[in-house]
Amino acid sequence: MDVKAAVALEAGKSLSIETVQLEGPKAGEVLVEIKATGVCHTDAYTLSGKDPEGLFPAILGHEGAGIVVEVGAGVTSLKPGDHVIPLYTPECRNCEYCLSQKTNLCQAIRSTQGRGVMPDGSSRFSIDGQPLYHYMGTSTFANYTVLPEIALAKIREDAPFEKVCYIGCGVTTGIGAVVNTAKVEYGSTVVVFGLGGIGLNVIQGARMVGAKTIVGVDLNPKKKVLAEKLGMTHFVNPSEVEGDLVAHLVELTKGGADYSFECIGNVNVMRQALECCHKGWGVSVIIGVAGAGQEISTRPFQLVTGRVWKGSAFGGARGRTDVPKIVDWYMEGKINIDDLITNVMPIDRINEAFDLMHSGEGIRTVITF
Amino acid sequence: MDVKAAVALEAGKSLSIETVQLEGPKAGEVLVEIKATGVCHTDAYTLSGKDPEGLFPAILGHEGAGIVVEVGAGVTSLKPGDHVIPLYTPECRNCEYCLSQKTNLCQAIRSTQGRGVMPDGSSRFSIDGQPLYHYMGTSTFANYTVLPEIALAKIREDAPFEKVCYIGCGVTTGIGAVVNTAKVEYGSTVVVFGLGGIGLNVIQGARMVGAKTIVGVDLNPKKKVLAEKLGMTHFVNPSEVEGDLVAHLVELTKGGADYSFECIGNVNVMRQALECCHKGWGVSVIIGVAGAGQEISTRPFQLVTGRVWKGSAFGGARGRTDVPKIVDWYMEGKINIDDLITNVMPIDRINEAFDLMHSGEGIRTVITF
Repeated sequence: MDVKAAVALEAGKSLSIETVQLEGPKAGEVLVEIKATGVCHTDAYTLSGKDPEGLFPAILGHEGAGIVVEVGAGVTSLKPGDHVIPLYTPECRNCEYCLSQKTNLCQAIRSTQGRGVMPDGSSRFSIDGQPLYHYMGTSTFANYTVLPEIALAKIREDAPFEKVCYIGCGVTTGIGAVVNTAKVEYGSTVVVFGLGGIGLNVIQGARMVGAKTIVGVDLNPKKKVLAEKLGMTHFVNPSEVEGDLVAHLVELTKGGADYSFECIGNVNVMRQALECCHKGWGVSVIIGVAGAGQEISTRPFQLVTGRVWKGSAFGGARGRTDVPKIVDWYMEGKINIDDLITNVMPIDRINEAFDLMHSGEGIRTVITF
Repeated sequence: MDVKAAVALEAGKSLSIETVQLEGPKAGEVLVEIKATGVCHTDAYTLSGKDPEGLFPAILGHEGAGIVVEVGAGVTSLKPGDHVIPLYTPECRNCEYCLSQKTNLCQAIRSTQGRGVMPDGSSRFSIDGQPLYHYMGTSTFANYTVLPEIALAKIREDAPFEKVCYIGCGVTTGIGAVVNTAKVEYGSTVVVFGLGGIGLNVIQGARMVGAKTIVGVDLNPKKKVLAEKLGMTHFVNPSEVEGDLVAHLVELTKGGADYSFECIGNVNVMRQALECCHKGWGVSVIIGVAGAGQEISTRPFQLVTGRVWKGSAFGGARGRTDVPKIVDWYMEGKINIDDLITNVMPIDRINEAFDLMHSGEGIRTVITF
């Protein structure tokens, strides 16, 4: 079938709106009509050419929502008409990782997903007979896409696509890091580094679970108003702190954070995030993705005196199980997505969405078809 | 009263057997007759002068066992005749740390302990009228010593002092890291770096909780026999591994360790210990104490893909609560201490015990009075 897609023809170039060809779903696969998709920094990172695993030409996009159109042989958990959110971290419920009950990093289709193809080793997308790579197993920058059944979360039908698509990445990554990875308890003290699309969701996740003190750290004072609306209780602008930022945060939090979150991808900030944690029990969670080859450091004394350093990917969420719950939280008014989606535009203007993201204006732009 | 003690008169010199004066216990304090004490690397580290917090002249020693002789005003949990193990990590059960239920690092007397004095700011030891510093709040290299009530674990009276003194540090540090800090589950895969007095106890702790695969890593092949007796299932000598040690360990453990423990104090080994952990859930625990100013490093990707980096001090044990349980485990034959105590000698020969430790012969020497 013919599909309208924004194609990344090569690294460093703008996306090109093209009509491409999409094959129907094979066994275990599902054809989904994408109704809305967010544009995320990860898409921009790959498009820039800096992602060492980036493949071209490809159809990017990983933060979508849509409707099942057709299912391949053997698909049992989904049927045409179901509303779904694509999962770049699938949940097969059968691999060693899923069965461990200790991680959300399902490995069932990891190797083929990393090579830009479906589990059978081939692509469903092509243009003029030439294959196009899938991206993160999702490729939501197209009005139709094919995914494995295990990479789709079935969600309630009254949830608006233009809002809940954001749960496909940013919302879940931030809120999940609080709920699943750190397991922040009621009354905790939390410090969040970076108030972008992830950090703001960490803040509202912390507020949701009842954190008492929620400190946001960002160099951009414009982030303050929205962060406060989402639950931030104290704002710290490092450029306005005299002396050591870590010491300032430890004092502000009366001994250190119970939980801290790095939502930038800066290895120096990752160290600050660990070291501002409370002696004895502070847990620091790395969410941001650092540049290739960069390293984190600290004195081991920080850990021996009780701090814990961990990381979170897709908010530690098991997508098929947890994403529908987060959609419920949105529909029940427990979390705010509307204020975080600052622009909505049709796919023909997708390059504008990338420009908006790079400019730092707004939080999230959603693309419709 | 006159007391026989091995005194560290100055850094870098041998201990000197002296008759020193000991004041009786003040309010909240307890006079203990020390019956046996281990000699640990931490004593040697401080004696060497490398410990930036080392104070001289002092009475070292922190791995003892003895009998209560006299209690000061207000002491309610101990009485003369009680058998006790001194705790360099006390357990007041009232400070923010004890009450957090998240750490064993009681801070009640931290500042005075660090300054080599009792909680009232003065020393009970003196020689010819000149005060001597206490060490780690314990000073067990003397046949009598005074400690705060909160720094004494009451133990059963049938436990032999010459064995259970080792529970005052090495045994608890190793076994506690397994039981309290890592919470290793039955059937786990464990890798232990360094098969000295701590690492061997990590091994028997792992065996005790039912770890299935227990890999010991040490450059000294002589460690193999005893480590196997304590529960090690695989021995790896890094000098005999062709290629990358981490890759070798990941292959040996079929994907990586569920839990790893660094028991050396080498920051490069700490990195290997983290990176040999299983993607998704591996937890690495730092026990060894690195040199002043040294730092650990890794790529944050190691954490974002699910590994956790933490540390352990005194095995995460709350001394008054947990040490008596470990004494029970020994008396019930669940753990082996006898094979780890390779020499016993009177205090007059304590400098020989330090020489033995430096030579790497044997595991632990116990001093009697």
